Amino acid sequence: MKALRYDGPGQSSWGEARAPQLLESTDVIVRVELTTICGSDLHILKGDLPEVKSGLVLGHEAVGSVTEVGAGVRRVKVGDRVLVSCITSCGACEFCKRSRFGQCVGGGGWILGHLIDGTQAEFVRVPFADTSTYAIPAKVSDEAMLMIADILPTAYEVGVLLGTAHPGDLVVVLGAGPVGLAAVATASLLSPEAIIVIDVNDARLAMAKTFGATVTINNHLVDPLSEVQRLTEGQGAHVVIEAVGLAETFELATTLTRPVGHLANVGVHGAPAELHLETLWSQDITITTGLVDTFSTPTLIRLVASEQLRAADFVTHRYKLEEITKAYDTFARASETGALKVALSSMAST
Amino acid sequence: MKALRYDGPGQSSWGEARAPQLLESTDVIVRVELTTICGSDLHILKGDLPEVKSGLVLGHEAVGSVTEVGAGVRRVKVGDRVLVSCITSCGACEFCKRSRFGQCVGGGGWILGHLIDGTQAEFVRVPFADTSTYAIPAKVSDEAMLMIADILPTAYEVGVLLGTAHPGDLVVVLGAGPVGLAAVATASLLSPEAIIVIDVNDARLAMAKTFGATVTINNHLVDPLSEVQRLTEGQGAHVVIEAVGLAETFELATTLTRPVGHLANVGVHGAPAELHLETLWSQDITITTGLVDTFSTPTLIRLVASEQLRAADFVTHRYKLEEITKAYDTFARASETGALKVALSSMAST
Amino acid sequence: MKALRYDGPGQSSWGEARAPQLLESTDVIVRVELTTICGSDLHILKGDLPEVKSGLVLGHEAVGSVTEVGAGVRRVKVGDRVLVSCITSCGACEFCKRSRFGQCVGGGGWILGHLIDGTQAEFVRVPFADTSTYAIPAKVSDEAMLMIADILPTAYEVGVLLGTAHPGDLVVVLGAGPVGLAAVATASLLSPEAIIVIDVNDARLAMAKTFGATVTINNHLVDPLSEVQRLTEGQGAHVVIEAVGLAETFELATTLTRPVGHLANVGVHGAPAELHLETLWSQDITITTGLVDTFSTPTLIRLVASEQLRAADFVTHRYKLEEITKAYDTFARASETGALKVALSSMAST
Amino acid sequence: MKALRYDGPGQSSWGEARAPQLLESTDVIVRVELTTICGSDLHILKGDLPEVKSGLVLGHEAVGSVTEVGAGVRRVKVGDRVLVSCITSCGACEFCKRSRFGQCVGGGGWILGHLIDGTQAEFVRVPFADTSTYAIPAKVSDEAMLMIADILPTAYEVGVLLGTAHPGDLVVVLGAGPVGLAAVATASLLSPEAIIVIDVNDARLAMAKTFGATVTINNHLVDPLSEVQRLTEGQGAHVVIEAVGLAETFELATTLTRPVGHLANVGVHGAPAELHLETLWSQDITITTGLVDTFSTPTLIRLVASEQLRAADFVTHRYKLEEITKAYDTFARASETGALKVALSSMAST
Repeated sequence: MKALRYDGPGQSSWGEARAPQLLESTDVIVRVELTTICGSDLHILKGDLPEVKSGLVLGHEAVGSVTEVGAGVRRVKVGDRVLVSCITSCGACEFCKRSRFGQCVGGGGWILGHLIDGTQAEFVRVPFADTSTYAIPAKVSDEAMLMIADILPTAYEVGVLLGTAHPGDLVVVLGAGPVGLAAVATASLLSPEAIIVIDVNDARLAMAKTFGATVTINNHLVDPLSEVQRLTEGQGAHVVIEAVGLAETFELATTLTRPVGHLANVGVHGAPAELHLETLWSQDITITTGLVDTFSTPTLIRLVASEQLRAADFVTHRYKLEEITKAYDTFARASETGALKVALSSMAST
Repeated sequence: MKALRYDGPGQSSWGEARAPQLLESTDVIVRVELTTICGSDLHILKGDLPEVKSGLVLGHEAVGSVTEVGAGVRRVKVGDRVLVSCITSCGACEFCKRSRFGQCVGGGGWILGHLIDGTQAEFVRVPFADTSTYAIPAKVSDEAMLMIADILPTAYEVGVLLGTAHPGDLVVVLGAGPVGLAAVATASLLSPEAIIVIDVNDARLAMAKTFGATVTINNHLVDPLSEVQRLTEGQGAHVVIEAVGLAETFELATTLTRPVGHLANVGVHGAPAELHLETLWSQDITITTGLVDTFSTPTLIRLVASEQLRAADFVTHRYKLEEITKAYDTFARASETGALKVALSSMAST
Repeated sequence: MKALRYDGPGQSSWGEARAPQLLESTDVIVRVELTTICGSDLHILKGDLPEVKSGLVLGHEAVGSVTEVGAGVRRVKVGDRVLVSCITSCGACEFCKRSRFGQCVGGGGWILGHLIDGTQAEFVRVPFADTSTYAIPAKVSDEAMLMIADILPTAYEVGVLLGTAHPGDLVVVLGAGPVGLAAVATASLLSPEAIIVIDVNDARLAMAKTFGATVTINNHLVDPLSEVQRLTEGQGAHVVIEAVGLAETFELATTLTRPVGHLANVGVHGAPAELHLETLWSQDITITTGLVDTFSTPTLIRLVASEQLRAADFVTHRYKLEEITKAYDTFARASETGALKVALSSMAST
Repeated sequence: MKALRYDGPGQSSWGEARAPQLLESTDVIVRVELTTICGSDLHILKGDLPEVKSGLVLGHEAVGSVTEVGAGVRRVKVGDRVLVSCITSCGACEFCKRSRFGQCVGGGGWILGHLIDGTQAEFVRVPFADTSTYAIPAKVSDEAMLMIADILPTAYEVGVLLGTAHPGDLVVVLGAGPVGLAAVATASLLSPEAIIVIDVNDARLAMAKTFGATVTINNHLVDPLSEVQRLTEGQGAHVVIEAVGLAETFELATTLTRPVGHLANVGVHGAPAELHLETLWSQDITITTGLVDTFSTPTLIRLVASEQLRAADFVTHRYKLEEITKAYDTFARASETGALKVALSSMAST
């Protein structure tokens, strides 16, 4: 089969690879029909994640059809069309039994395209298939479903739910990339009084409005702290969602949070930030971090089916799987191309 | 009357002061029978809290008798013996209506001995008396009650409850000062599997055992991270309570917290700490800060009355109020004197 | 002044009454500009609430202007335009300090038009004004504000929040009267997958659709249990809100709730219901009852101001205050007149 | 092998049965070393549970050794000594993924000794072994472990946790049978102000004291409502746990619950109860029902290992497995024999 391999920092190649085989009784093999590229794939390519070995097939999001099923698989059958989620769950470890699948210590967690071969390929082996794949309802398009593989549950669980957004709250989202915009879309489900989005890119801020932002701030033009203070009568926001991953934006986020407020970090960070405990210690602030667990996947599927979440709108560009190098380029130059998510379809499904 | 005044950084004096008078209809005047000294009083004396004005009477903890009552006071009568809490609550602002009295924006919060004259005096004016004082039940001694003015609710609310300790959890407390030990005592109410206490002072660690610690670590002798890792099979603690207030101990605390765990900061900090988001971002950690709200005061009073919380054991030294300078000295040299809390009684009550 | 008095079961009269005076230092007097009639007023008139004494002025919802202020009032001034809420809160009792104002044991709770003279009059005395009235923001109309005096917080707190509605849930509301429809409107804030409304009145079911119902069932024509089973693939609803107050509808509600689901009773009941514990015991069902606390009042005001809650749409009929007898007739014959809420305005404000 | 079979209402027999075999890849076979009898076994024998088929092997609690392992089992090996829990969990259905294993719709739930052959036998087939068995730590005795198969998690999860007991609460437990006493023991973990236990049997009330009850009421001698009112100054209890299963005790429980309190039903009911909504509707009461989920099993094991929960004390009588008929007789006549739990050991392990 064909697949996109990571060839060490700065390098990748689309080419022939050995087709995956069942290794464990709980595995299935899925023929990938639709996959996409994530910001973390770019981090891997940059060499930021040294645990990723050269030769690995990248990708952790897919829609496809099951072609082989291990002896211990009970709920998934050959021919089923499924969502392959970014998180694999063993279903039996202490974390999985408490719905914290992202922290799985039984062989799952974020492993696809990270520790084992991933979805940017014609076929992928999916471990623990009973607990790590989801059926695709008739009412949900493949592209919408693909957005539930990672960005929507990440933004909803790690941003909106850990941030404890409630009706009437004032919510700030830092960063209008795919995950930040997914935070805007899923925060809207909870009817905040307002959603303020901060980014440096006007095109993305305009998109934020279409996903539910009520106010946007270009922080290259306006000081975001004084602007948020002005909009909130000096109080700051109930919920602040950091969706950038820089020390600078995280530190800004701590200043935007009102007493008794929540700061939910969603961004992937590569360096420490300074935490101003000399002011924060008495302010009843809650700061959370998190890897997505995907416990909300069934909920998000229902909300897309009932047309309350316009998941497919995140797909801005479409390519054939064999054009993946071009797709990476488009995605990597998002500020120029306006790309949010690119959908890569195999020929079989086109 | 006599009172202890703050005379600017490094200086204080016990001497004559103008007796307090009712200023608002919701005030009462309390004759102080028992008061104590808090670690934050030492911070004020050092000059760490510039908002404290020279000439202020210090102290925010007392047991006493009501001598005058404003026209708008409904629940407190002249002659009532009451606990004066460190937190004053207006009862009507948005924070007070949500039980977050520590964040009161209606004129309360931590004001006694901070923004208005405090309790280290023969008399004190207590604003918002209906919502800021507590009756003393027959079964509770004055010294036990005095411990509920600050250290017990602070440790319980900001440490144990914000840290979400549950039965069977592994809890770490950093710092075995009065608040750290109060965290040990109140965490014990929730039957953790174990409570590990870390401090540099062996005498205080020995006291920690009497309050419920199961394991103690002298971090001058043993590396606390590797010891906690050893004791928890490499997992870290479910709940970590920082009760020191240094960047170094806060940073240690983040490394002791297991995935999905909680780090509750109770320490008063004077400088920023480094937050290692490059490792924490994916670990589902919750970090909380907080000023005590005293919503748990009635609960703590009941637990002392039912002998489940040995509050009076925190009092290690007793003085007459007029000996307050000596008491400050004993308290400030706690590592030598073994002082936890000093009880200062007016002559009237002895 | 003029007022509507309860004259014992079945009787009331609009006529001259003694103008209210300040009795406690925490009272204010409000000149009523807008008031309305509640279903519980009809219960009182029927004699269902024997604690209501003959001669009492009815009504517990109003918008008006403050004309007098007691000595202990700090936050409300003469001339302020305020919402008078159905719940009065002393702010200091154990329940008020935990935000459970409806259970106030310090002299508040539901007292207006129930235990003390109410709002269906030209003037009303409002106890504990600092904690029981709310300022009216510029963006909120008086009629919208009036809906926040009772039906919106009742439906939201006792129905939607105690019922723990979440995005993607399937919600059933029994009863499409004013409170049932307010439950539909406020449940919509949380983006359920669907809201199914059950009533016997087609006109009210049609209104339910305008407030956010996705499916309506006329239970005189269709069996609601089998219809809900059909719509939910046999599972039942995550959240069931009883807004009728009959044993029959409560018992139906228990059968519509799925395992791990919540049944929130909002209806005012006059008789016991049968609880089928022989089937429910193992189903992980949570049943809640409640009187409104009005802790959500500030939130609801913000949501009306931000146009996410169309509160004014509940007002279907308007009268002058002096026409109150006619208004009661219209409201009592709601199934014929189509009345939801009637707005009664004093001449001064028209 | 030998096993105890249910032979239809009123009848059972100890005798030869076909040894169990692996049926699914996720099954294991366990040689039973220790088992016990549950109140629900008596219900089955009475014919109260018509879904139980004649010929079924009874029992749903065991400690034993794994003798065979299916191809899909990953975490359990031949020779492992394990706890067999009353709840079997598929690990993959919507309920299991949310930790509600008792409601499993993937083939688990309460099936052992109910829908499939159970543990009162020399060998038992345990489905979904990876998610339904627990390793036995060195510090925990087999008898203590056996108590974690059902009564301790049932009492803790369905009684104490659904009842939301907190430090300082006043807790009432109705019924001092094994589950009621387990509720006393596990409520004690949370340091209530007091635990009041109500039963008709003085011997069981005496045992309640040894498990942590502070007050006991024999409701054949004293009116429990007036006694609880007296003890709580007319307020009632924060948490009421019904552990009897009769309409009469459930109805009593509703009257013992204070406003904003919780009533947790643990009892297995065979008939409806009357719910006095005409008084309860306004009292902010939460009523919960539930089948145990066993999510707390790892926590309870840790608490037994750390000697905070004296699980083994529930075992009052010991028999050989072949004496099971005598053991049933002892257990059924508990009011005479004083039996709480009987431990039945196979010869192999004695």
